[in-house]
Amino acid sequence: MTEVLPSYIAGSWQTGQGEGTTVADAVTGDPVVRVTSDGLDLAAAVDHARSVGGPALRGLDFATRAGMVKALALALSERKQELYDLSARAGSTRADSKVDVDGGFGTALVYSSMGRKGLPAGNVVVEGPVEQLGKEGTFVGQHVLTSRRGLALQINAYNFPVWGMLEKLAPALLAGVPTIAKPATQTSYVAEHAVRIILEAGVLPEGALQLVSGAIPGMLDLLHGQDLVGFTGSAQTAAKLRGHPAVTERSVRFTAEADSLNCSVLGPDAVSGTPEFDLYVGGLVAEMTSKAGQKCTAIRRAFVPRGVIDEVTEAVSAKLAEVVVGAPGAEGVTMGALVGTDQRADVRRSVEALQADSRLAFGDPTKVDVVGADPEKGAFLGPLLLRAEVDARTPHEVEAFGPVSTLMPYDDRAQLVDLVARGHGSLAGSVVTHDPDFARGVVLDTAALHGRILVLDRDDAAESTGHGIPMPQLVHGGPGRAGGGEEEGGLRAVYHHMQRTAIQAGPAMLESILQVADDEK
Amino acid sequence: MTEVLPSYIAGSWQTGQGEGTTVADAVTGDPVVRVTSDGLDLAAAVDHARSVGGPALRGLDFATRAGMVKALALALSERKQELYDLSARAGSTRADSKVDVDGGFGTALVYSSMGRKGLPAGNVVVEGPVEQLGKEGTFVGQHVLTSRRGLALQINAYNFPVWGMLEKLAPALLAGVPTIAKPATQTSYVAEHAVRIILEAGVLPEGALQLVSGAIPGMLDLLHGQDLVGFTGSAQTAAKLRGHPAVTERSVRFTAEADSLNCSVLGPDAVSGTPEFDLYVGGLVAEMTSKAGQKCTAIRRAFVPRGVIDEVTEAVSAKLAEVVVGAPGAEGVTMGALVGTDQRADVRRSVEALQADSRLAFGDPTKVDVVGADPEKGAFLGPLLLRAEVDARTPHEVEAFGPVSTLMPYDDRAQLVDLVARGHGSLAGSVVTHDPDFARGVVLDTAALHGRILVLDRDDAAESTGHGIPMPQLVHGGPGRAGGGEEEGGLRAVYHHMQRTAIQAGPAMLESILQVADDEK
Repeated sequence: MTEVLPSYIAGSWQTGQGEGTTVADAVTGDPVVRVTSDGLDLAAAVDHARSVGGPALRGLDFATRAGMVKALALALSERKQELYDLSARAGSTRADSKVDVDGGFGTALVYSSMGRKGLPAGNVVVEGPVEQLGKEGTFVGQHVLTSRRGLALQINAYNFPVWGMLEKLAPALLAGVPTIAKPATQTSYVAEHAVRIILEAGVLPEGALQLVSGAIPGMLDLLHGQDLVGFTGSAQTAAKLRGHPAVTERSVRFTAEADSLNCSVLGPDAVSGTPEFDLYVGGLVAEMTSKAGQKCTAIRRAFVPRGVIDEVTEAVSAKLAEVVVGAPGAEGVTMGALVGTDQRADVRRSVEALQADSRLAFGDPTKVDVVGADPEKGAFLGPLLLRAEVDARTPHEVEAFGPVSTLMPYDDRAQLVDLVARGHGSLAGSVVTHDPDFARGVVLDTAALHGRILVLDRDDAAESTGHGIPMPQLVHGGPGRAGGGEEEGGLRAVYHHMQRTAIQAGPAMLESILQVADDEK
Repeated sequence: MTEVLPSYIAGSWQTGQGEGTTVADAVTGDPVVRVTSDGLDLAAAVDHARSVGGPALRGLDFATRAGMVKALALALSERKQELYDLSARAGSTRADSKVDVDGGFGTALVYSSMGRKGLPAGNVVVEGPVEQLGKEGTFVGQHVLTSRRGLALQINAYNFPVWGMLEKLAPALLAGVPTIAKPATQTSYVAEHAVRIILEAGVLPEGALQLVSGAIPGMLDLLHGQDLVGFTGSAQTAAKLRGHPAVTERSVRFTAEADSLNCSVLGPDAVSGTPEFDLYVGGLVAEMTSKAGQKCTAIRRAFVPRGVIDEVTEAVSAKLAEVVVGAPGAEGVTMGALVGTDQRADVRRSVEALQADSRLAFGDPTKVDVVGADPEKGAFLGPLLLRAEVDARTPHEVEAFGPVSTLMPYDDRAQLVDLVARGHGSLAGSVVTHDPDFARGVVLDTAALHGRILVLDRDDAAESTGHGIPMPQLVHGGPGRAGGGEEEGGLRAVYHHMQRTAIQAGPAMLESILQVADDEK
């Protein structure tokens, strides 16, 4: 019988009971692992984080914590091949894995560096100026940030088992808050291995990181107002978690980062023959095919000037025709599998829904040529480009979480802004233009709808990381449909795990409180 | 029949239909006003904010908005006597009214000043440094804050009808976000009059401020991810609102500021005869009697070294014995009424619950001498001091929202920190000590449990604003039981109404986007 994936709870590796869920190889359909948390003592994990991990982390200064984050990143880097190999079973090509694995430890390294450079000595952040509260200056105020005395429950999505975990773990560790990671079932074996590598490196104090492979029934009931829940995944699950009494009644700090209907806009200046036209087409194809389109930041809505939509359709279709779908690592393969056949069925249903007022311009949802694998046993799906008119509703409502995007025309900037807004908030948008006036108008008019906007042109393209890549220095998250939260964004993510408190005192008393805090480093 | 309190919706004063709720004078029990929103077109209010107020405010630069906030504050200041007179009907003495009315327009003035000095030209905030994202410097990132394209629904508590409204309204106006204010029924006639003064001053663009007197059934159903809800009041209502699909599914930005079991700590150095001993006693009595204890920041839990608890009890009781309860304005009266007899019944029930493991040390919940009013028709209640042991549970769980506080001993600092933590998060705490070591230990060990901590001693006492007074410069809010939110805190409250977006571009493109934004001032 297939092995049960272990969890790491209260200082030891443990396995759940019962049959659990069998996770199939995305490429072959063979069973990889069984996932169950039945019988695990989840309350012990919560207790352990509170009583062991929290005090241990809070006792370390920021510099020591930054050193730990660097060490765990280097440990992952050294053993990245093991993670690539496992990721291939989840359908990821080497390029996909790099986004996840190298992106993951790279993010941790950037966090370590930001922490070392940007956080003070000691373990208290003094934020902003001293506020004089009286005329004579004998009474002042000062905001400080201290570690929340709770734990961070991190519920991650299947598409980035390593990066998604590390972009939450690194800020929590820097902030002195212990983590319980709960990976998505589909790729939990990749996350489990990453945790194993980290723990085997022996760089974290006991209790700083625990792992639950499988469901976490009742765990939110155990959380209180010093705890945090960070969630990445579907809007539906986000809503369910956010409605839990832990959040609504006990003020557990909750952040959601949900998939959104991100857009990319082609500027009117970027006609065929300009570098921007090619950048737009290349960017769209990259976002459709990277991770087989299973990215929360992927471009789902592609807006182009009405006059060029046929040309864009042709250019994108021509590039999509070159995509080779198949087993990761097989000769010539440029796009892997979806994470599973359930996911493929979901995407197909969504594409059907989109076709209510969109039409297929490229690809066939029912048929795909596959290299090195069986197209039915594996979760393969070819890239699908749709086209819709300005009055279509479904492209602004239905998300096909796969290699799927919808091209739509726009007639003028006002209409464009209205179309962008119909997505009800996104993680990422991009504007491909060399015209600063157009860029300014669209960026400022749609900024409030986005967590991040990329302006791409001939000048930044060489160094640009592209539409779909969150950066640790910049906020990742977005309003409305995107979940309303923020992750990353430099040290903001660390501060998110800390409590801001206004201290009021006389200036000498304040100084002695904060100086001593500083001396304790 | 008693008149219906008007609402201001979509550009006109309107009155709801039906009988509604009759609000009684807190002092005489006579009807003051009826409150009903039945038949009002709440959807029109939402539409009006979106289509009229929002665009009008967003079209103004920060400096103009700061000027509006100053103008409305001055208008309130000029007509403050009208607000004092109305507040007296809600049980407030002149001193109570000043905290609310002068505190309200004073807060708006500080916000205007902070906005004028701290916000940039134009209407976009550029936040933090330019982040270099590539080695060559051709690709950079920059966070900006722009006005959220929605409205702020502000649901206020009864105890501060003016201040509570203005500390939400001022930041929203500065941020360019239109407000719909929804006061608590009990003191809605005070809030209505404040709104009337503001609107009559003619300083706001139409749609920037609307008022719903009465319930708002279905209004949250109309909100989306660009909107905000700011709530002050009970934890129970906060939980209900936070569990609404507007918040859980559509990511309406939600902040709660809920009453909490705030503590005040007397340091071991502050024995009888020290200035700090007297400051502690005076502060506790002030917090018990100001607004008749109806303050979300009031001291509910008073921790003192075991050795001095009898002395503290005596000193506090002696001062409480001097309190004169009665009609605001009547000869010698130093403490007014609760807002209504329902509230008094609530407080009595809570005191009964507290007596499960606390005992009354001063006062009688069933009997009070009242000057200038009928003790039964008016909502009068004398101050009540309770005492409990370190193992008592109810003082950490039951809030009596009136002139009630519980004294408890502590034996050492570790035990003290544990006792403080049992409140599950507070808006405000205070430590009265002249010993920097004790202050440092308690402040840093309990900071994460508080939104604000006052360290009070002989050096800052003269200028200190006291335990219970939030300051516009400093965060107001707190973790856990206090609602997990933040209000005020300087420009943070303005930024809360804006959307943070990371812009990625080449440096020249970024500069031209932001420079032009700046030129548009």
